[in-house]
Amino acid sequence: MTEINLGITCDMHVHVRDGEMCELVTPTIREGGVSVAYVMPNLQPPVTTLDRVLAYKKKLQELAPQTTFLMSFYLSTELSPELIHKAAAQNAIQGVKCYPAGVTTNSAAGVDPNDFSGFYPIFKAMEEENLVLNLHGEKPSVGEEGNDIHVLNAEESFLPALEKLHHDFPNLKIILEHCTTEAAINTVKEINKNVIDSSDIKVAATITAHHLFLTIDDWAGNPINFCKPVAKLPSDKRALIAAAVSGAPYFFFGSDSAPHPLSSKAKHIGVCAGVYTQSLAISYLAEIFDAQNALNKLRAFVSDFGIAFYGVSKTDIRSLDEVMIYQKEQIVPEHITNDQGIVVAPFMPGAKLKWSVKWSKSN
Amino acid sequence: MTEINLGITCDMHVHVRDGEMCELVTPTIREGGVSVAYVMPNLQPPVTTLDRVLAYKKKLQELAPQTTFLMSFYLSTELSPELIHKAAAQNAIQGVKCYPAGVTTNSAAGVDPNDFSGFYPIFKAMEEENLVLNLHGEKPSVGEEGNDIHVLNAEESFLPALEKLHHDFPNLKIILEHCTTEAAINTVKEINKNVIDSSDIKVAATITAHHLFLTIDDWAGNPINFCKPVAKLPSDKRALIAAAVSGAPYFFFGSDSAPHPLSSKAKHIGVCAGVYTQSLAISYLAEIFDAQNALNKLRAFVSDFGIAFYGVSKTDIRSLDEVMIYQKEQIVPEHITNDQGIVVAPFMPGAKLKWSVKWSKSN
Repeated sequence: MTEINLGITCDMHVHVRDGEMCELVTPTIREGGVSVAYVMPNLQPPVTTLDRVLAYKKKLQELAPQTTFLMSFYLSTELSPELIHKAAAQNAIQGVKCYPAGVTTNSAAGVDPNDFSGFYPIFKAMEEENLVLNLHGEKPSVGEEGNDIHVLNAEESFLPALEKLHHDFPNLKIILEHCTTEAAINTVKEINKNVIDSSDIKVAATITAHHLFLTIDDWAGNPINFCKPVAKLPSDKRALIAAAVSGAPYFFFGSDSAPHPLSSKAKHIGVCAGVYTQSLAISYLAEIFDAQNALNKLRAFVSDFGIAFYGVSKTDIRSLDEVMIYQKEQIVPEHITNDQGIVVAPFMPGAKLKWSVKWSKSN
Repeated sequence: MTEINLGITCDMHVHVRDGEMCELVTPTIREGGVSVAYVMPNLQPPVTTLDRVLAYKKKLQELAPQTTFLMSFYLSTELSPELIHKAAAQNAIQGVKCYPAGVTTNSAAGVDPNDFSGFYPIFKAMEEENLVLNLHGEKPSVGEEGNDIHVLNAEESFLPALEKLHHDFPNLKIILEHCTTEAAINTVKEINKNVIDSSDIKVAATITAHHLFLTIDDWAGNPINFCKPVAKLPSDKRALIAAAVSGAPYFFFGSDSAPHPLSSKAKHIGVCAGVYTQSLAISYLAEIFDAQNALNKLRAFVSDFGIAFYGVSKTDIRSLDEVMIYQKEQIVPEHITNDQGIVVAPFMPGAKLKWSVKWSKSN
C-alpha cells in the first residue's frame, strides 16, 4: 500500500474560534492530519493583548495537547511597538494579522488598507523581531457610490499595497494569506524572482485547500462554499493549483478553515463567510496533488516551506509525530458535531476522498 | 401630491409557477402594479402542448381575473411547426421561451445553445406567425474540464448565438431576456442602430427590477439575491440603469420575478435561483427611476415599449385600468404568505420604498 510521509505538517492559517465552537474544532486540527497550526486572532474582541494571547494558547493547548499552536495578534491601534517587542521576547506570538476593515468574519476592528502608514512603527518593531505580517489581501468594497471594488477584484486591487509594504519594509516577513487569483500568484512570483536561497524569502503566500477545488460557480447558490476572498474564475484556480504543486518555497499551506454553525450558513440573508476544511485538511490536499500527479510535492507544501518561512524550530514543536497519508477511501461526513450540539458542515459533504491520514509515532 | 400615470403596465417576464405557489403569487402581479404579464412556461413538466397552455391560462385567469396573461411554450423537441401554427391561429401563445439546458430553475429540458439548427423549422413557423422568441441568454457552464464558461461570462458568451439567430431569421422577433451585462446592452443597441421606427425592432431586451439594484457583492452571502443570470459588476449595473432610463424602445421591463419557498433559499447547498419582486414590481422600478431623475421615462419602459413590441391590442387586455404611482413610503415585508403556509421572502425585505401604486379605474 502506498504510504507517503509528510513530516511535521503545518497549517499556517487556522480559525479555531472560542467557546463551544473552539472545543469542537480544535481537536480536528490533528484529526485532519496537521501538527502545527498558526492561529488567527479574530475573536470578539480581537486578540490584542499579551494576557489574551497567552490565555488563548493555554486553552487551545488543553484542548489539543499534541498540537503545536503558533499565535498571532490582531493588527489594530491597540498594539504598540513596545507590546510587539515584549510579546516577541516571550515567544508569545509569531506574527500579526492584518484585516482590512469589514471584509470578513469579525474584521470590523480592522484597518484601512489604503493607508498603512499609521502602523509603520508596529511593522518596524515586527521587522526587528523577525515576526510575520499576515495580510488578508483585499481592498474593501465600499458600495454604491464607491470605488468599483467588488469581491472579484478586491484581491488584485490590494496587490500594490502588498508591493509597497515590501518596498518600505524589505526585511519584514509578509504573507499574502489565502490568495485566490492568478494576479496574486504572479505578483508573489515576481517579488521572489531573484531569490536564491529559501532564507531570502520575505514575501510568501498561503493557499487554502478549498480554493484548489472551487470557482465562482461553486459558491453561487452554495453558501457552504462562500468564503472571503471568494473563489474566482477557472483560470485563477488553475494558477493556484500550479503554484501549490510548483515546489516554489514561497507558496505553502494555510487552510483558512473557518467554521460557522450550520445555522449561520443555511440562511437567505447574511451568510457567514468561511469554509470549514480542518477535519480533513490533508486529505483534501492529497486529492488535488494526486490528480496533478504531484504527491511528491505535497510534503514541501504542507511542511518544509511553512516551517522554513516561520523559522519553527524542533524545540517549539509539541509532538514530533509525523503524518503519513495512505490510500484509503473515506466519505466526507454531512456534519460534525459534539455534545454541545453545535453543528458544522464540512467542505464537500458526501464526497469520496482517496487518501486518509495516520500518525507515525516519534520515538 | 405627485402622481404619475403609467398606463397599461406590462411585466414581460413572470414566473407564477403552479400549485400552491401559483395561488400565492398570481394575485400579486396586480398588487405590484402590473396589468399585463407574459408568463414563463418552465413548469414541471414544461408547457409544450396546446391543452396545457390553455389550462394554465384558464387557471391563472381564475386567480387574477383583471390581469391579462400572455402565454408561452417551452422550446423543446416536443414542439412542431404545425403546433406553432395551430397555437398562433388560436392566439393561445405570444411566444416561445428558450432555456439553455441546465442554467436555471426547471431548465433540464432545455436546448443546447451551441446549435439551434434543429429548431430552425420552429423558428421559421414563429417568424411567419409573428411570435416572439424569448431567450434565456446564457451559455451553460460545463464544469471542471470545460469551456471556461462561468456565471460571469455566460451571458456575454451567448451573444454571438443571438446575433446568428437574428441573422438567420431577420424577421423573427427575439428578446434577450433579463439581460445583465454591459456587453448585452451594447449588442442589442448595435443590432438596432439603424432602427427608425419602433415597428422595425426585431431584437429587444428585457431588464429586471432587481438587476438595477444588485451587483455580485449583493448575492455573495445573500442567497435571497441569487438568480440566473447572476447580477454582475458595478459597471454592468450602471449600463442596465442607463438602458432602462434611456427611452430606447428596445429595452423594456420583464421582472423575471421567480418565487421560491423560503426553505429553498435559506440553504447551505443547492439554493434555488430566483428573486421574487412581483408584489412590489413597479415600486422597485420607481425607486431607481426616481434616483436617476427619470420618472418621466418610466411609463415607456413599463408600458409603451412592451405593448408595441408584442403587438398587444386593446381587445387582448382584460382590464383597461391604468396604474398610478404616488409618493407614499412603504416598507418591504419580510415575507409574504397565505393560508397554505408557503412563505416567500420578497426582494429587499425591510427596505423603505418611496413610491406606492394604485389603480385608476377605466370607464
